[in-house]
Amino acid sequence: MADDGAELDAVSRANRRFYEAFEAGDIDAMSDAWEHSERVACTHPGWGTLNGWAAVAGSWYALFHNGQTLQFIVTNEQVRVEGDAAWVTCDENILGDGPAGGTVAALNVFVRGGDGWRLVAHHGSPIVTRS
Amino acid sequence: MADDGAELDAVSRANRRFYEAFEAGDIDAMSDAWEHSERVACTHPGWGTLNGWAAVAGSWYALFHNGQTLQFIVTNEQVRVEGDAAWVTCDENILGDGPAGGTVAALNVFVRGGDGWRLVAHHGSPIVTRS
Repeated sequence: MADDGAELDAVSRANRRFYEAFEAGDIDAMSDAWEHSERVACTHPGWGTLNGWAAVAGSWYALFHNGQTLQFIVTNEQVRVEGDAAWVTCDENILGDGPAGGTVAALNVFVRGGDGWRLVAHHGSPIVTRS
Repeated sequence: MADDGAELDAVSRANRRFYEAFEAGDIDAMSDAWEHSERVACTHPGWGTLNGWAAVAGSWYALFHNGQTLQFIVTNEQVRVEGDAAWVTCDENILGDGPAGGTVAALNVFVRGGDGWRLVAHHGSPIVTRS
């Protein structure tokens, strides 16, 4: 089965690389985390879905250059592998007060290519606290 | 390659079955659309992620019994297949005025088992119109 411990660890590392690039605002590391293809998709919180690597890369470039840095702790990671594809759910707990704070629920899809696991889809959305 | 037209069509049909069950408020059809396993995950707009079929099924049961029916048109569907896994991005354009209206961006992940393509992850979040 592909769903063994080594593959789960490899996908978890790929997920961590994505968040480390995100937190560092490192566009080269973010580029390395993604598959560079037309089939990738990215949905930032509140945004419509961006399709294709050019649009996705452009969005990260813009986010990293808007002067806002984000720090967060990733929790509740669940990693699932099916052959050469995998999906991860996790919570991005954003540190800080005000509108930048709070928790974003994420679903990340990875595909294994010749150079390891790369992100092909990311969808994040804020968790609205219910009273 | 698994990424041929027939498989794309099969995944698209599975995606449509999910939305038909959603719109009809049909819990049996919704149940048929999902893989029944611990690895499934569902993130409704504004919610935290639910893990495992029991929690996911319970959420649909609650949504279908709150007296609110939703009608929507699905647009911008992009279907991608990688072996026995697939992911779909689309927009759920909800008909009607008020808080129930608007557009939800969705990322849906499917896995092919003995009885065809079944949903293993759904994440929906409202698109916030930017002024």
